[in-house]
Amino acid sequence: MLQKFKKHIAVNFPFLEGKKLLIAISGGVDSVVLTHLFSELNFDISLAHCNFKLREKESDLDEEFVIKLSQKTSNQIFTIIFNTDKFAKKNKLSTQIAARDLRYKWFKELVETHNFDYVLTAHHADDNLETFLINLTRGSGLDGFTGIPSVNGNIVRPLLAFSREEIINFATENNIEWREDKSNASTKYTRNKIRHQILPVLKEINPSLLETFSNTIENLKESAQIIEDRIEEISKKIISKKNEILRFDIIKIQQLSNPKAYLYQLLKKYHFTEWNDIYNLLSSQSGKQIISETHRLLKDRDFLLLSKRDFSTSPKITFKIEKNTLEITEPLHLSFKRVNEKSIGNKQIIYVSKELLEFPLIVRKWENGDYFFPAGMQGKKKLSKYFKDEKLSLLEKEQTWLLCNAKNEIIWVIGKRQDNRFLVQDTSKEIVKVSII
Amino acid sequence: MLQKFKKHIAVNFPFLEGKKLLIAISGGVDSVVLTHLFSELNFDISLAHCNFKLREKESDLDEEFVIKLSQKTSNQIFTIIFNTDKFAKKNKLSTQIAARDLRYKWFKELVETHNFDYVLTAHHADDNLETFLINLTRGSGLDGFTGIPSVNGNIVRPLLAFSREEIINFATENNIEWREDKSNASTKYTRNKIRHQILPVLKEINPSLLETFSNTIENLKESAQIIEDRIEEISKKIISKKNEILRFDIIKIQQLSNPKAYLYQLLKKYHFTEWNDIYNLLSSQSGKQIISETHRLLKDRDFLLLSKRDFSTSPKITFKIEKNTLEITEPLHLSFKRVNEKSIGNKQIIYVSKELLEFPLIVRKWENGDYFFPAGMQGKKKLSKYFKDEKLSLLEKEQTWLLCNAKNEIIWVIGKRQDNRFLVQDTSKEIVKVSII
Repeated sequence: MLQKFKKHIAVNFPFLEGKKLLIAISGGVDSVVLTHLFSELNFDISLAHCNFKLREKESDLDEEFVIKLSQKTSNQIFTIIFNTDKFAKKNKLSTQIAARDLRYKWFKELVETHNFDYVLTAHHADDNLETFLINLTRGSGLDGFTGIPSVNGNIVRPLLAFSREEIINFATENNIEWREDKSNASTKYTRNKIRHQILPVLKEINPSLLETFSNTIENLKESAQIIEDRIEEISKKIISKKNEILRFDIIKIQQLSNPKAYLYQLLKKYHFTEWNDIYNLLSSQSGKQIISETHRLLKDRDFLLLSKRDFSTSPKITFKIEKNTLEITEPLHLSFKRVNEKSIGNKQIIYVSKELLEFPLIVRKWENGDYFFPAGMQGKKKLSKYFKDEKLSLLEKEQTWLLCNAKNEIIWVIGKRQDNRFLVQDTSKEIVKVSII
Repeated sequence: MLQKFKKHIAVNFPFLEGKKLLIAISGGVDSVVLTHLFSELNFDISLAHCNFKLREKESDLDEEFVIKLSQKTSNQIFTIIFNTDKFAKKNKLSTQIAARDLRYKWFKELVETHNFDYVLTAHHADDNLETFLINLTRGSGLDGFTGIPSVNGNIVRPLLAFSREEIINFATENNIEWREDKSNASTKYTRNKIRHQILPVLKEINPSLLETFSNTIENLKESAQIIEDRIEEISKKIISKKNEILRFDIIKIQQLSNPKAYLYQLLKKYHFTEWNDIYNLLSSQSGKQIISETHRLLKDRDFLLLSKRDFSTSPKITFKIEKNTLEITEPLHLSFKRVNEKSIGNKQIIYVSKELLEFPLIVRKWENGDYFFPAGMQGKKKLSKYFKDEKLSLLEKEQTWLLCNAKNEIIWVIGKRQDNRFLVQDTSKEIVKVSII
């Protein structure tokens, strides 16, 4: 296998030559063989081992084992101990996902601190097929069937073309020792069932299953690539950008052969899960919205507006500003400055008469029933009416902040329009310049 | 299940209402239950049973069984006996494929003769998943993972949303009898292994596997739809049509993100199998070609030319025309007519002096070394040079026929240019008008 592996690296991963490599090592046969192979080929390797403390004493023995291994094979070994269960509970994650997140975050830190070029993991062909079948049992789309990528940023998986059998044979033939992974069966329940009960039957049906599968994966990747091309092209026609908001043209979406399928492809990277609801948004009333972990999709007349969720605020949160404050940075950056003379205001700057203010001032979002006296106009106006006349989208309304006095009267629709009541008067002795920075 | 089924038909197959239906029945539980269900719902059904004679006496007992069933449930039953093995051998097909071809061909005949609106088959959700896994073991692309279509032309599969378990339960609860299919295990080896060894494990992992799977299939179908859209759109830019030949612009193909993937999608319906060879054709010399069962793809400078294969001819086949023949229809339609006067010839019509001809005349394709004396020119010219000057593509050259005399001298490059040597002379007594009809 060493010669085959050498050739495989030269052909498929020539960029690894001469680079600083970090191998993720558990102590299991896959990562141990990966380490031996790169060591034999005289690559510049270091090891990184995570002790997830999930298997008590066994976890510590794994650590001891890989430290010993590193002495013969690599420049150095980094080890870390994670309180995985605690982290998982705190972040409401499964143990498996928690371990993965912790692991990759740490690798990233090591890469940055020690200038590694690539992180190598020991995933192999059987892992790839197992993942395919796990995704089949869980339900998936095409993206779940295109395999583990062999190169993903600086993560490289040089063993993906090799079977578990080849790897174990290599270890056995070369008297390489490894640690059996006796990890918690429950977290690996599905994978173990697939590994031990399904893969053997599939391999009986087709002894070259893994090779066949690798072609299948290639085919599906190519399909995914064509879909990407189509989505890229259609995005240009459907999506426009305004400030930080993406506007999806509903009429154009509805003209596509399968609007629901396109919506999924257009929005999948924004962590939505309720695809039926999103599809229904096309024909729902303005104002309806769907929230993902990270984004908000809002129906606004002929458009779906996509924006990042703003976790710092909610409509009910108010920010108080005490007398003599010079500057606030939350929820937005404003400065307050005493000036001797009023100059001409604009959308970014207003001048107010300090005597007319009542402290503490308040910065808040708009609410139903809000009204103000727009500068330059006679009388008062409902804020909702003002917004409508200005043709603000629902999202823009949501993102607008109001500067109010202690009585909750609007001084400034920030960035848009000042209120008549607090304008600088001829009699004003103290003038405050408020500006968006 | 009857109520669920009734609703399922009303929602998903409303078009079946009031139509003449033909149910394909083997005698197995699936098709027997399908028959009972449609009979209970008072649809207008007839049955069609194929006796493939693959299981000797058992096959005949199946036939007896379904004939009896038809008396209680349907208008009529059509039966047919196939010598499947003989047909399979003759056509070099597997028994399974042979049986399928025979079956669907017969259904088509029945539909046409008896004016059925739809043919119903009893495929169910487990069949669908089994097919997915069979395709996984054999290797496949996306098209192998999008499931059996529930409606495909006039073939309808109303049970695709139901599991084998539901179907068997329905039969058991309603004391419905059926015939166990003890068919030749070898032809069903793979399917049986998947049915009995793999599906049960997957269902242990996920008890709602079939439901999950049906969503997966929907997702993959949607992906396939997007690919189709992309291919349709890109085809407009890449393919032009000239006569019956499709011209694929090589430079434009090479500009695509993944030319190989696109070539597959653009050409998959033409029965090619050697996709690497087709990809290599992009950069190969002019004149190289790849043949499928039905089509020919030829590299010709900046284009790939796709044409139907012409099975009636090959370069070495010649067609003889005896003296006094009035008309030939093969390899192309020509008429030979004695006329008193020469009129003006054109690409479709020539006039020759009969005295100068030597019979039998020959119609053949061109060969290396061919030359002729083009009418209206001095001297002789190599045919290859003539083709080049006329800027004929390789495919057009191949499709050109020559009319020659018994000595193999060219009289007419048919449809293109006559030869000087056989023109009508002032001294000619007998004139023959040769025309393409």
